[in-house]
Formats: sequence, C-alpha cells, structure tokens
Amino acid sequence: MPNALVVFTPSGKRGEFPVGTPLLQCAQKLGVDIDSVCGGRGICGRCKIIVAEGKFAKYGITSLETSLSKLSEPEIKFKTRKVLKPGYRLSCHTLLLGNTVIDVPAESQVHKQIVRKRPEARKIEMDPAIRLYYVDVDPPQLDNPLGDFERLVRALQIQWNLTNLFKIDIRPLAYLQETLRKENWKVTVAIHGKKRIIKIWPGFQNNAYGIAFDIGSTTIAGHLCNLATGEVLATTGIMNPQIRFGEDLMSRVSFVMLNPDGKDDLTNTVRSAINSVSLNLSNQANIDKNNILNLTFVGNPIMHHLLLGIDPSELGGAPFALAVNSGMTLWATELNITEVSEDARAYLLPCIAGHVGADTAAVILSEGPHLQKDISLIVDVGTNAEIVLGNKDRLLVASSPTGPAFEGAQVSCGQRAAAGAIERVRIDKKTLKVKFKVIGCDKWSDQSDFFQQTQSFGITGICGSGIIEALAEMYLAGILLPDGTINGEILALSDNIYQEGRTFSYRLYSGEPNIYISQNDVRAIQLAKAALYAGTRLLMDKMGVETVDKIILAGAFGSNIDPKYAMILGMIPDCEIKCVSSAGNAAGTGARIALLNENARDEIEQTVSRIEKIETATEPLFQKHFIDAMTIPHKLAPMPNLESLVELPSQVYSPSNQKVRRKSRKHQLKLSTQ
Amino acid sequence: MPNALVVFTPSGKRGEFPVGTPLLQCAQKLGVDIDSVCGGRGICGRCKIIVAEGKFAKYGITSLETSLSKLSEPEIKFKTRKVLKPGYRLSCHTLLLGNTVIDVPAESQVHKQIVRKRPEARKIEMDPAIRLYYVDVDPPQLDNPLGDFERLVRALQIQWNLTNLFKIDIRPLAYLQETLRKENWKVTVAIHGKKRIIKIWPGFQNNAYGIAFDIGSTTIAGHLCNLATGEVLATTGIMNPQIRFGEDLMSRVSFVMLNPDGKDDLTNTVRSAINSVSLNLSNQANIDKNNILNLTFVGNPIMHHLLLGIDPSELGGAPFALAVNSGMTLWATELNITEVSEDARAYLLPCIAGHVGADTAAVILSEGPHLQKDISLIVDVGTNAEIVLGNKDRLLVASSPTGPAFEGAQVSCGQRAAAGAIERVRIDKKTLKVKFKVIGCDKWSDQSDFFQQTQSFGITGICGSGIIEALAEMYLAGILLPDGTINGEILALSDNIYQEGRTFSYRLYSGEPNIYISQNDVRAIQLAKAALYAGTRLLMDKMGVETVDKIILAGAFGSNIDPKYAMILGMIPDCEIKCVSSAGNAAGTGARIALLNENARDEIEQTVSRIEKIETATEPLFQKHFIDAMTIPHKLAPMPNLESLVELPSQVYSPSNQKVRRKSRKHQLKLSTQ
Repeated sequence: MPNALVVFTPSGKRGEFPVGTPLLQCAQKLGVDIDSVCGGRGICGRCKIIVAEGKFAKYGITSLETSLSKLSEPEIKFKTRKVLKPGYRLSCHTLLLGNTVIDVPAESQVHKQIVRKRPEARKIEMDPAIRLYYVDVDPPQLDNPLGDFERLVRALQIQWNLTNLFKIDIRPLAYLQETLRKENWKVTVAIHGKKRIIKIWPGFQNNAYGIAFDIGSTTIAGHLCNLATGEVLATTGIMNPQIRFGEDLMSRVSFVMLNPDGKDDLTNTVRSAINSVSLNLSNQANIDKNNILNLTFVGNPIMHHLLLGIDPSELGGAPFALAVNSGMTLWATELNITEVSEDARAYLLPCIAGHVGADTAAVILSEGPHLQKDISLIVDVGTNAEIVLGNKDRLLVASSPTGPAFEGAQVSCGQRAAAGAIERVRIDKKTLKVKFKVIGCDKWSDQSDFFQQTQSFGITGICGSGIIEALAEMYLAGILLPDGTINGEILALSDNIYQEGRTFSYRLYSGEPNIYISQNDVRAIQLAKAALYAGTRLLMDKMGVETVDKIILAGAFGSNIDPKYAMILGMIPDCEIKCVSSAGNAAGTGARIALLNENARDEIEQTVSRIEKIETATEPLFQKHFIDAMTIPHKLAPMPNLESLVELPSQVYSPSNQKVRRKSRKHQLKLSTQ
Repeated sequence: MPNALVVFTPSGKRGEFPVGTPLLQCAQKLGVDIDSVCGGRGICGRCKIIVAEGKFAKYGITSLETSLSKLSEPEIKFKTRKVLKPGYRLSCHTLLLGNTVIDVPAESQVHKQIVRKRPEARKIEMDPAIRLYYVDVDPPQLDNPLGDFERLVRALQIQWNLTNLFKIDIRPLAYLQETLRKENWKVTVAIHGKKRIIKIWPGFQNNAYGIAFDIGSTTIAGHLCNLATGEVLATTGIMNPQIRFGEDLMSRVSFVMLNPDGKDDLTNTVRSAINSVSLNLSNQANIDKNNILNLTFVGNPIMHHLLLGIDPSELGGAPFALAVNSGMTLWATELNITEVSEDARAYLLPCIAGHVGADTAAVILSEGPHLQKDISLIVDVGTNAEIVLGNKDRLLVASSPTGPAFEGAQVSCGQRAAAGAIERVRIDKKTLKVKFKVIGCDKWSDQSDFFQQTQSFGITGICGSGIIEALAEMYLAGILLPDGTINGEILALSDNIYQEGRTFSYRLYSGEPNIYISQNDVRAIQLAKAALYAGTRLLMDKMGVETVDKIILAGAFGSNIDPKYAMILGMIPDCEIKCVSSAGNAAGTGARIALLNENARDEIEQTVSRIEKIETATEPLFQKHFIDAMTIPHKLAPMPNLESLVELPSQVYSPSNQKVRRKSRKHQLKLSTQ
C-alpha cells in the first residue's frame, strides 16, 4: 500500500499514512487534537475538518479534492441536516488518498480555547470534569465470567484508552444491564474525573450540561453551559431568598445563633433557590435537566458553609474559623439539589480564609494573577472588600472592613443599583451646577426627554458608583475639602450647598425625594474608602512594592464605577489609568472556568494553599494607613496626575501635606469619640 | 542523659534510649507493634505491656522492677478498675530507667492475630478498614486561615503520621466545629481506608464495631465484631424473608421477571432483614448502633444483586451475565441500611461468575487455597455445588448442578436440617438392622431414653447428611448395589427392605411418619453426587492432576456430613481421610476476615480476577464424568481403601469394574428415557 502525506493545520503536525487511512486515525496517531464522542462511527459529528485545496509550497504538496475519498453516507446525512457546512468533512469518514492539507477548526478541538469578551482576560481551555464516551461493549459469554460493568470498563479501556476507570455509582449500576441491552450493546457513558461512571444512556447521546453558580448574599446567579463546547446556553439570577432572614450576612449569622432551626432554615432556603435557578435555566435553554451532570459553586464563606449545611456561627466572630477551606467534590443530591440529574456531581471552590471565600478564589481563577509576572491588584468591593495582590511568585490577600457604604447603605439617599438610582454625576467647575444620569436612562439630567424617560420609575436615590462620582466631582469642584468637609465657605456660590445644623449638605436633585449628600454621608464613604485603601496599602507593604502593574476592579460595584473617580477619591493606589480595568462578574467566570476545566480545580486549590492571608484587624500598620487614607485623595502616595484625568479647578488642588495631615488627625479623633 | 537497653519480646527488637523515655515511644521507634488509640495519653489502655523480671542471659541483662518508673496516675486508675492486671503496665506511662525486658502481649498489638477454632485454618491479622484515632487539634488563630478540617488533618498527620488523609464526608463536616469545641479541641475520629474521615466524637471514644453479613437464600446471618480486638460480640441469623417470594433462588428470579415491582420487593425485603439482624445484634451485645461503622457482605450472585438493587433476571438464564463482579465499597445508607451509624461504610466481596458468588469468594478468603503450595479442593454444597480447586499458582472454579437433593428436597422423607431429622445412620452388616440419631438428641435410636428424649419434637424426616450416611451404609451392607439399585434379592434377609411396584425401598423407621429411602430417592442422590463428582473431576482434568492434597467441605451441609461417608458414596475424590475437613461457615468467616483486615479485600479481589471459571454446561468432559460417576462409589478413580475406613461385608465389595460399568450404562439409559 503506497503512503500519502497529510499535514494538519494550525498545529503543523504531519505524517505519512497508507492510502485509505481515515483522517481521524491519522490525527490521533499524530497527536492532533480532534474531538469525538462516538469514537469514529460517524454519529456525533464532532470531528469536522476543512479540506484545504491548492498548492502548498511550504509543505511541498498540492492538495486536491481527489486527495480524499468521496462523501460517505454519514457525511451526506450531516450535509442534508446542514450540520456539515460546505467544505467541511467528518475526519472519521474521510479517507486519505493523496497528499493533502487539512485544517482543524477550533470547534473540532477537544481542548479548544474559549476566548472571553475582555481580550486581556485569560482564555478558557475546554477540559471538563465530565465527558461523554460512546462505546460498543462485548456481549457476555458463557465461558467468560466478567460482569457487564467489567466488560464496559474493558471496552472503555480499549476504545478510549481510559485506564484508571474502575468505579461506578450504585444508581447507574442498577440500570446498567437493561441499558446495555437496549441498543445492542452500544451505550454512551458520562465519566467523572476520568475514573468513575456516573450515568449511562442506551445508544448515542450527545448532551452533557453543567451549571456554574455564584451564590452571593444578595443574588444567586447560574450559568448553564454545554460541557462539550463551553457555550453558555442560559444565564439567570434571582434574589437570594435568605434576605428575609437578614439583609446582610451578619444578621443572617445572628439569626442562626438565635434560632434553633436557623441554620436549617437558611440552608434549605439557599438550596431551594439553587433548584429554582436550575429549573429556570433548563427551561430557558429547553434542555433535559437530567443531562445536567456537573455543578460548580462559588460564594463567600458564610454562603459556602450554609450551602454545605454547616452552621456559620464561628464565622460571626474572631478568630473567624472556617469549618473547611479545601475544595470539595460531592453528589448534588448531598446538597439536596434535585432539579438536575440525580447523578450530578457538585464542586465547591476552596475558601481562602474566614472572610475571604470561594468567590475570591474564583476571581483569582478568572483573572489569573498567579500566572503572571506583573503584579496585579484585584479589588472586589462588597460589604467587605476582598483585596488580592501579587503575581506568580507570591499572592497576598486581605479582607478590609469597608462596611456597606459603597453599596449605598448607611448613606442618606443611598440605594442598591436599580432603575432610578443616580449612577453618574458631573459638577460644572465654574457654575457648580450638577447634572447626573440614572440607571435605566441613557440621557443626562440636563438633556431634553430625561424626565419623560425616567417617569416610569422616577429618581429614587443614589447608588454606590453615583456616590463615588458625586464625591469626586464635589472635590474637583472645591465643594469638598481634602479633609472631607463640605465647604461652607462657598455656600453663597451655589444653591445646591445648604446648611443643616453645624454642617453642610450638597443637593443633587430637588424633587420627591430630594437627593443629597450630607456631611455624615461623606464621612461614611471616607471610612469605607480609607479601609479599602489601607488594606491595599498594607498588602503592598507586605509585598514590598510601591506601585502595582495593574488594577482590576471586580464584582458588580467594581464594574460600575469609573476607575478615574475611584482614583481621584483615593480608593485605589495610583496607577496608569489604562492599566485599570473592570472584570465584571469575575467570580461567576471563575465558577465557569472550574466547570469547563477540571485542571483549573487543582490549579485554584494549589494557588489558594499558597496564598498568604494578611489579617487587617491585628495589624498596627493597617490602623496607620487607615488614618492617613481618610483624606481625599490620600496622603501617603504621591498625588495622581489629576490634570491628565480631568480639568482641575486651581483653587482646590493643594499639595500641602502638612495641613492635610493635621486636619485628618483631628477628624479621626472626632470619629473615635463619637 | 545515660542510656538504658530495652528488649521487647516476642519480637526480640531492642534498642538503647535515654533514661526517662516512655516505653511506648521506644517501641514506636523500634517498630514494635503496640496499639494505641489515644496516642500515649493514658486514656485508652490499649498499650498494655508485661514487665519481665529476672536475669536474661540471652540478652546479657537483669530486668528489675526498679528498671521502670513507678505506677503513674492513669495506671493506678486502670488498676483500680481492674483493667490493668497484676504485672501489666501502660507502656505510654512507664518510663525506662534501667535495662529491661518487656513482653508485648498479643492483645496489645495493632496487627494482632486472631487464632481460629480450627487450628489448620489461616489466622486473621487485625488491620480493619476503619480505625479510631484520638487527636488534639490546634485551635484556630486569627492570623492562620486554615479551616477546622484542615487543622484536624494536620494534627492527624503530625500525631498519627496519616499522610494520605484529605477527605471528609459531608455529615461529620456539618457538626465538625461544634464537636471540636466540646472537649477543648480533643476528638476521636473514625477513618476509612486511611484517607477519609467518616465520623467524629468529642473527646475520647473507644468503640468501633462492624458486622460481617452472610446473605444466604435461606438464612441471613450477621456477626458483630469489635473492630479493634476482632472479638465476635454477637452472632445471629434469621430466615431470609424473601422465602415468601419463592423457596429457591430461581423462583425468586421468576417472581422478579413476572412482577413489575418484583425486584424492589425482593430488594426491600432483604434490606429490612439486614436491618433486623443489625438491630438484634446491637441489642444482644448492648452496644450503640451508631458505633457500627463497617459492614461486609457475602452472598450468592442473586442475593448480591438484589442487595444492590440490581434486577437479577440476567442471572436466570444463559449466559448468566453478572451486572458487576468487582468488590464494591459504598455507604450503608446507599443500601438503605439504617440500623447502623449513618456514616457506616459497606463492602461487598467480589463475585466470581454468574453462578459463583461473593460467598464462594469469601470461602476462598477463609480457606486460603491461593496462599498454599498444596492443591486444595473446596466443595460448598447447596442447590448448586461451588467447587474450587487449586493452589497459589492457579485456581479453578466451577458450579455444578447438583439440584436440591443434598438439602433434603426431592427425597421422599427429606427435610431441612432441624430437630427431629435423622442425621446419622448405622446398619449392622450381619443383621441388616438399622439404628440412627436425630438432630436434637445425643442418643442412638437403640439406646434407652431415645424415644423419651425425642418426644417433644418427634422423628420427622431425614436431612442431607442422614441421606448420605443411609446410602453409604446401605451400600456397605449390600442393600444397595454399585449401580444404585436397592437389592431386592435380599428381601428375605431384612424386614426393612420392602417392594413397591417394580422397585424396592428401605425403611429406616416405622412410625408416624414412616421414614424410608425409595429407589427414586437413591436416583436423585446419585444424580446429585454424580454432578458434584463430575464437576470436581473436570476441574482436576483442567488442572492436570489425578489427586488433591486436601479436601475442604464448606457450608452447613459440608460441616454436617461425615467425610468418610461422602467418600464411600463417591461424592468427592479419594484422598487420605485425615486430609478431609469441614470448614463450617467458611463464607461467614470470609466476610469477617474482610471486615477485620482491609488488605484482605485487595487480596480476594486480585485472587478472584485470576480465577479461571470452568463452565460445566458446555463441557463435553463433564457429561462423560457425570455418566461415569453415577455408580457407587465411582468408577473412574481407584476404589478407596474402604477397609481402612469401616469393616466391609465381603459379599458386597466387588472390584469388578467391568460389571459395574455395564450396569451403570444401562441405568443411565433408563434415566435418560424417563
């Protein structure tokens, strides 16, 4: 038999094979990554390749249509069903007849990479913990006593080279014999971790799904993914129904401590919410919930523990001991999650410390600071701010007690980010007039149609990102002094400034309700931003660095604030503005990565085990940084080059550190005796 | 610090240690096997040693009372409670002060050996899959983010050198934090397979139990064992309540095939019976069922499958495919076994083939043919006979279709072994008068008091061992001819022989009821014994041997029959009578070995994987042996030296093979045309 040369692109792998060899077989022998569930039987349609025609001087060959066998029957079927586009072939049913160049499209690779929306973010390589294998099992014979399971295992070893496989759940075992006999000893099996059979279908089956869950204290979100393609088929989020036991986490912990059944109430509540989300997702995507085989979970330590049925009381007070911090794999049924396959597995990402949960681990997995030489600073602001600093050599983490001010709580007109909340603020430096945008409307408040367009929901308050912008703009306009005092001396210059008792307030909007920033509101934000900055600064001290290479703002708050304003206010250390980015829902993305790539689970567990946890509460340096960071922007770091960011009013910008420090200390004394 | 010499017996291990070193520590450094649950804290009392006083020329030292420290407080406590006998010390609280000889009694060894009642049987070495460890965990600290579980794991690594430990069940995890804090961070943990925590108690806990189950088609038996000492604390057996679905296995399989819920009915029935046995055992032994942590199961393939919830229909017909033959470890709760700890693990021994179950695997584990150079033949007779032949190099197994005649079924006056059943028979060779014994009475029927002593239950029938003896004695007395015909020619010589139609019967007892052996009864036993012998002979052919080194009769039937009579009848091949033994309930013992020694599970799984299954049904040689073996004793083997066994009547014993063969063939023809 004469040989022919085949070159696979983009890998460039090449080899000579006897004329008549199927291309899939050539690819497998050369180690070219081509997917297949049916093992070359022309059933799954996964092993698509593109025939390259023409002269390839680089390889010294001419590739012709006639270098390959004609369309086979399964290919014609796939062509008819339009699954196989023009120019595409099934590599398992295309025989090599002459020298040829074959392109393997990304979709046909097992370990294909999923490119994310943010081009700077790491790619996700497909390698899910659960994979499907179609297999042809030898029927039993009187003179061979091997059980059906053992013959199935042998077939998987021979046909798929799965050598560590030796276990099966009791549920699929109970229906194994019936399933094997239904379609003439051909079955598809779902295998977990390359070693355990968790589900079996008669004949060929192509659909395995998973859900990545992000269990927040406010929202429970789920992303339904196809485990073969990585595609997100549906995403949904619902309010965490635990809110009825307490708005914030600590009041839920109190509920558990005060009520004998409190833990069970909260656990059952979060588990039913997860079931609702699952059901919603499978309905949305119109898939069979029994094919949802894998779940991953991220969440803060309290949500993580409640999901597992662990009393979170220990997390309510020092030393904030976690019951467990390792990643955990279990049956979904052990968590009473019923709206997925009975055989589904769940994976909980590891927690990092009592205040730094699996959600932060997921943010790290998503942003990959542990893979880079550059030093990243990742800030995830919620009721606490989780701060991660480091690179591939060293990673530090801290939780800084910012309080809920950034979320709009403890602020006079504050509210959660929802339609009607002010989210953008601009103050004219000359007239001191204000304009703003609210969530749910694209127009600025000084544009025509604004009030018409906002009529249905009204202007209801100010959310976290709005407060940040308001304060920064007030500072830039000279309304707010570096020590945080609303400047009463310019009362006459603007109608928006008004006196209340011994302090002044700044009105953003007159209406029903009035929306304003009071002196106390400024103090609350000052405390929050000082805590955030001090935590960041403490980690930089521990790391021995004065600057960071990039800053990533994670979470809902982080993706809504304008980094420029965060920097003006001194929330984050100075950094070139182009190196600051918002990661969006990085925790959810981390859960998705762990769902789609089994190695990512080891990766994050190993990374977490080497993270250094810095405790802010007992660290004298934190107190010092906190006091220093009360000023706006912040005292220790060199002032950012604000002029490059916005046009500054000259009367406000004063680099007199001496003066600022005195004011700051005075204020701190006031705060501490309140 | 000066050193002192310590010699531990019986190991003879010796070493010098600084004066003041605790003896337990010396032992551990020298690798002397001393048990301890509390890790040397003087709580568990497991590390008892005996002080040897006197001159030990062999070691060149004199051992004195003063070579050791005085009684410590924990030892005084144990002495008061009489747990520590005179001369005994706790090695953890006894300090080495001078040269000394220390004896480690068997009870103090972790890997102590349990000697069985039959001196020829293998010893059981203690090494259970579940062990308890008392451990002192570091409390959490603010600057160390390790979770409680991870600190527990670290403590177990440091204090017990358990380096593979990294998993915990979700149930103990849920109460971990509370448990750790109850007794000041001291807990006892139960660890499965040296790597997974399955249960935790606050403080010190000394009690871990297991149950070895033998799930027979007729009887479900359980042996409750202490997992530390190996002691059997209670044994009980109940009728398998599945009997109401069918007396024999095949009628139960039919029930499953004919009823839609049949499998579930049978599965639930056997599982509740197991729960009843568990409850009964913990009540009998007066122990807390929550400390029963491990269960092992043996049973025939159908019982094995029904226990797992697998439909046994495939086992009802060729090719008799098992769903699974490997050993299986799972949660007891997965089998709905609730009358043990919620955290208990279950282990099912492997099955060998469709007709040869985990019970036979357990018999092999108990009798150890795979460990010996000698060739063993193991015969376990039930409705089928399981036959094992081989040694450490090669093991063969077959199942031979003996039918239920040996169990008293299909025999006119046959009955199960129970009070009132004839089990021993003697026929006077001169007078042809018969005497017998029945179960439940020590006297022979010709002794005074016999009828008085049996009055309460009466004389009700004849059981398997009685039939064997009756036939053998009839043969020896010339009443039964080698071809199995009851000899009508000697009708006149005995009142016990009488004609019925064209054949003759032999009466054992005249009463209510009459008990007799009919010609048809003889035929049924001939068929059964021929099947058994033919199976044995087939394995010997495959193995290429003419004789075996020993014969072991296993199971209830095997332990009741007299090997001498089995040999006279030609049930088993000829062998020196001293090399034939009864193993009693070897399957139950195998289950107990797997319970007490984790390595035994690997051992039997590996052994089973190399066993060669010989199929009798398709083997022409089997048919030939079967036909030849119809004669009494059996034709092919040289006649056993019967004179050495019993006194033979000269008129019967005739070595004329020619004559026998002719008769045998004639009879066979008759049988096949019936």
